[in-house]
Amino acid sequence: MTENIAQNNYKLKISYDGTRYFGWERQPNKETIQGKIENVLSRMCDTDIEIIGAGRTDAGVHAKAMIANVHMETTMAEEDILEYMNRYLPDDIAVMTVTKASDRFHARYNAKGKTYCYTIFNGKVKPVFNRKYYTFIEEKLDVEAMREASDYLVGEHDFKSFCGNPKMKKSTIREIKSIDIKSSKGYIYLYFTGTGFLQYMVRILVGTLLMVGKGEMGPEEVKDVLDARDRTKAGQTAPAKGLCLEKVYY
Amino acid sequence: MTENIAQNNYKLKISYDGTRYFGWERQPNKETIQGKIENVLSRMCDTDIEIIGAGRTDAGVHAKAMIANVHMETTMAEEDILEYMNRYLPDDIAVMTVTKASDRFHARYNAKGKTYCYTIFNGKVKPVFNRKYYTFIEEKLDVEAMREASDYLVGEHDFKSFCGNPKMKKSTIREIKSIDIKSSKGYIYLYFTGTGFLQYMVRILVGTLLMVGKGEMGPEEVKDVLDARDRTKAGQTAPAKGLCLEKVYY
Repeated sequence: MTENIAQNNYKLKISYDGTRYFGWERQPNKETIQGKIENVLSRMCDTDIEIIGAGRTDAGVHAKAMIANVHMETTMAEEDILEYMNRYLPDDIAVMTVTKASDRFHARYNAKGKTYCYTIFNGKVKPVFNRKYYTFIEEKLDVEAMREASDYLVGEHDFKSFCGNPKMKKSTIREIKSIDIKSSKGYIYLYFTGTGFLQYMVRILVGTLLMVGKGEMGPEEVKDVLDARDRTKAGQTAPAKGLCLEKVYY
Repeated sequence: MTENIAQNNYKLKISYDGTRYFGWERQPNKETIQGKIENVLSRMCDTDIEIIGAGRTDAGVHAKAMIANVHMETTMAEEDILEYMNRYLPDDIAVMTVTKASDRFHARYNAKGKTYCYTIFNGKVKPVFNRKYYTFIEEKLDVEAMREASDYLVGEHDFKSFCGNPKMKKSTIREIKSIDIKSSKGYIYLYFTGTGFLQYMVRILVGTLLMVGKGEMGPEEVKDVLDARDRTKAGQTAPAKGLCLEKVYY
């Protein structure tokens, strides 16, 4: 460590296609997004570097704008760090921006909320070009019923029925700020904005809304699922490939 | 063959992601788009089926709307054929429409022209989600110079300099109806519309326009390349992944 190398806290905006990764979080001997980024930065700084992500995405989940922060000592300018990272990262991970942040900025603790988008294709012929980023549902969905059901989910609730971790000891109370369901050209986009989400929560919410869309559950029954605080009452966990982290709020 | 099974000529509109194929044309022991489709139809009809494509696309080239025709004997309705095909075709090939055509309709002989689009990404950070459908050019391109150069290529010319097959015995005269170059959000889209194209012609045209865009060749020099009737005077063959067959005209 020489004295003219400043230590800075950098904020990274990262986009990735999660298809071939075991999720965001670093794991030994597994390809993960955090792992890939840390490897590149560790090489750049010639020392072990750890980054802090705003959250974890599961295996196969994508991100348009994951936020992370990293404390590093380097003489490189932000745009040179950006260029270096994108030169050495694989094609399915891209750093969109690198900016200096205050020393106290913490990508996870300071995150006020997140928006996830779940993409369903409900048209006749499956589009080939973006097939890794949507889930195909053949049965015609009743989008209006799904919207009605989603109203019961918005607000602060105990989402125990929608938690993928059966051994969750901590509070399963979370707040969903909004659920917006848009449909266009055969696609259905479900946007979930909330302060925080439990493991698999968005995908279990989607699986449950899909039951409503298929007429297997009435919209108002979603309230009963919520009240039951029982994972077995909710729908299946929807496939990872349809899910994308859209935005993190600070 | 029973008497109430009619033989019909069907017109198919097909979309595919060519990434993992050795091109359109059937080849023994190789994965090709024509091969995949013929296998599904042969199983459906319980007899060997051959389809006729509007043209051939090279290995790795995509199509939004390839047109093919096929003479088949079946009692199935068009929409059932469509459903059957999409059920058994892999996710990277989709049949968009199946319609009955006149017996004389021939997808190749009747094609009056085609539009291909070549997609370049020339922005700073490579987008991750559609990375199999564009070619990344890091050096900032002079799009205006490329447009100027493209004007020399429009019209009926001997495109021998832009032909990938050095042993081509037949005429290398072709007519390019238009070349439109659009740029948006870091992407550059080059649309080539013509009556017919030689092997690798679009990709060699793109490779040459890229030389102009990089300042390695003046726009007016493209005329000299054309006049030379010599493949070595033109630019490199641009990568297959950026090319997509957009439309076939009848």
